[in-house]
Amino acid sequence: MLEEILAQPAALERTLARGLRTAAALARVIGKRRPKLIVLAARGTSDNAAQFARYLLEITTGIPVSLAAPSIFTLYGARVDVRDALVVAISQSGESTDTNLVLERAREAKALTVGITNEARSTLARIADHVFLVRAGRERSVAATKTYTGQLMLCYLLAQALGATIRTDDLRRVAEWTQAALTLAPEIAERTERYRFMERAVVVGRGLNYANAFEFALKLMETCYVLADRFSAADFLHGPIAMVERSFPVFLFAPPGVTWLGMRGVIRRLQALKAETLIITDASHGAAIAMGSPTLIVPTKLVSTNVVPAELFTPIPYIVPAQLFAAHLAERKGLDPDRPRTIEKVTRTL
Amino acid sequence: MLEEILAQPAALERTLARGLRTAAALARVIGKRRPKLIVLAARGTSDNAAQFARYLLEITTGIPVSLAAPSIFTLYGARVDVRDALVVAISQSGESTDTNLVLERAREAKALTVGITNEARSTLARIADHVFLVRAGRERSVAATKTYTGQLMLCYLLAQALGATIRTDDLRRVAEWTQAALTLAPEIAERTERYRFMERAVVVGRGLNYANAFEFALKLMETCYVLADRFSAADFLHGPIAMVERSFPVFLFAPPGVTWLGMRGVIRRLQALKAETLIITDASHGAAIAMGSPTLIVPTKLVSTNVVPAELFTPIPYIVPAQLFAAHLAERKGLDPDRPRTIEKVTRTL
Repeated sequence: MLEEILAQPAALERTLARGLRTAAALARVIGKRRPKLIVLAARGTSDNAAQFARYLLEITTGIPVSLAAPSIFTLYGARVDVRDALVVAISQSGESTDTNLVLERAREAKALTVGITNEARSTLARIADHVFLVRAGRERSVAATKTYTGQLMLCYLLAQALGATIRTDDLRRVAEWTQAALTLAPEIAERTERYRFMERAVVVGRGLNYANAFEFALKLMETCYVLADRFSAADFLHGPIAMVERSFPVFLFAPPGVTWLGMRGVIRRLQALKAETLIITDASHGAAIAMGSPTLIVPTKLVSTNVVPAELFTPIPYIVPAQLFAAHLAERKGLDPDRPRTIEKVTRTL
Repeated sequence: MLEEILAQPAALERTLARGLRTAAALARVIGKRRPKLIVLAARGTSDNAAQFARYLLEITTGIPVSLAAPSIFTLYGARVDVRDALVVAISQSGESTDTNLVLERAREAKALTVGITNEARSTLARIADHVFLVRAGRERSVAATKTYTGQLMLCYLLAQALGATIRTDDLRRVAEWTQAALTLAPEIAERTERYRFMERAVVVGRGLNYANAFEFALKLMETCYVLADRFSAADFLHGPIAMVERSFPVFLFAPPGVTWLGMRGVIRRLQALKAETLIITDASHGAAIAMGSPTLIVPTKLVSTNVVPAELFTPIPYIVPAQLFAAHLAERKGLDPDRPRTIEKVTRTL
């Protein structure tokens, strides 16, 4: 798992370089036939990437997005009207039976289809009209890392193809920031000692980093067997915060930008409750650092411009400290993050 | 909270009787202007009702549904193109600032709007084109119960207005089944003793009962301070099941119908891991009962016909044992479920 975390900057560069052509081809099709709806179908870590895409695409393109509930197609056999939609399936293996079935149904309805996968020869790659490939090499750890960030990168290209203002130069810098984030490894390895006996935790994110809260929680569950629940800052205050008592561990993604005010409110509430908070933020964001809670600072300066909000490119570098945390905590707990008990890499869903 | 749980059958009857007229009026409008997309906006328990509506509406009407992420409208100020959509906000108080803003934006875009709320004089009731009222009386407990089931009832009427084959007679029987479910109270009160020291748990549902998994987990978090994570049966097998060891508590909604095969697979896996499972099912469903795990049996015979799948009307009666469980467990733990620490009834989100 650690090896695959370290491989991410190179994988992102390759994925971006080769994905640009696919994006350009897709953009030509979309120029003629703009979708009125985007449907995203995925499971597990890929579903977390879809959660990111949901925010990214609605924010940058204004096209409504629906995260598909595959069972509606597979179990209930419903005929959802997706004629005017762009239907996107995301799957590391490309062999997720239920998300592939959503794509099949979409094809039958004459919708435009896109697949995002690691495997060029998979069923998904065969049935989708357009295929974005994650060029991350074979992922051997059951806990997905490099395929998640690769999927996120391709979501940016998908947004670009749909007309969003996303500059390729900024995407190139994302790979550099990911490299910078890896330098946190020794600090994180040390910090995990404190969490040796953690059995439950909460992860909070919002907006573009909400998906990262899902992904961090999933890594903690899969590799460390920590029951980790994930909430948006807003939903967390609506009820679940009642659980939090002194020393309750809460991890927060706190980038600069529009989500900061709400996140600051959550952090203050947690500080008053004497919870054990750990904030993932970046060097540009003095406000988060100044709150006095322990922080993991992604060593990069993100730049906000007129066209791109400050946190647009944070999700990929921000998940890196979380991946490192899960991998090192698993080691501290004497567990093998590459081969969690009970589960397998490819899940076929009834 | 217990008092409000007991008030549900009567509240459901009132809500149904008065809601039929609203549904008929909405049906006339929809006859002229069929929406191509349904957008649902909500927070907290109301968001769990929206999760139910998502399945119900796609299965019974075939119109794609998107669960809105309010921050996309409120924080990112995105202009999502909802012109051809039906936009539905669900809020107990009708004063949720962010979901109301989603509805305001929808009005500006000339979308058709619907509000589902407990409060006839709320902001939400004022701004929505069509208003469905939950006739449950004032809800005093911070933990919502009778407003949740009332919202579910109105979701059926919304589906009916959109042309779904949902017979009013069946909806009337839902109130009777809810009454029958309340007879489980003594059994549940006794059973909670075993869970006195439970600190973490998982709730599994799927399809139409997936929302109930969210709602049961939220009740356990708010009223019992148990960290309760909720998963669809499919996502659970994709990774989080790795956490489960001997005696790990897992609650499952296992109605008859199309989700049963997958749920049976989950139960078998959990039995092999010697987890502490408790299955919510009904008297018609011998298959679930025969698996030998402890069950809470809703004492009703659900009937499957050609037009309605067996589990279509299970979600309201099935949440009742879960509500009772949370209320009684809170009591066992010496907590006051009506006034959880830290949180308030109406949450205004930045």
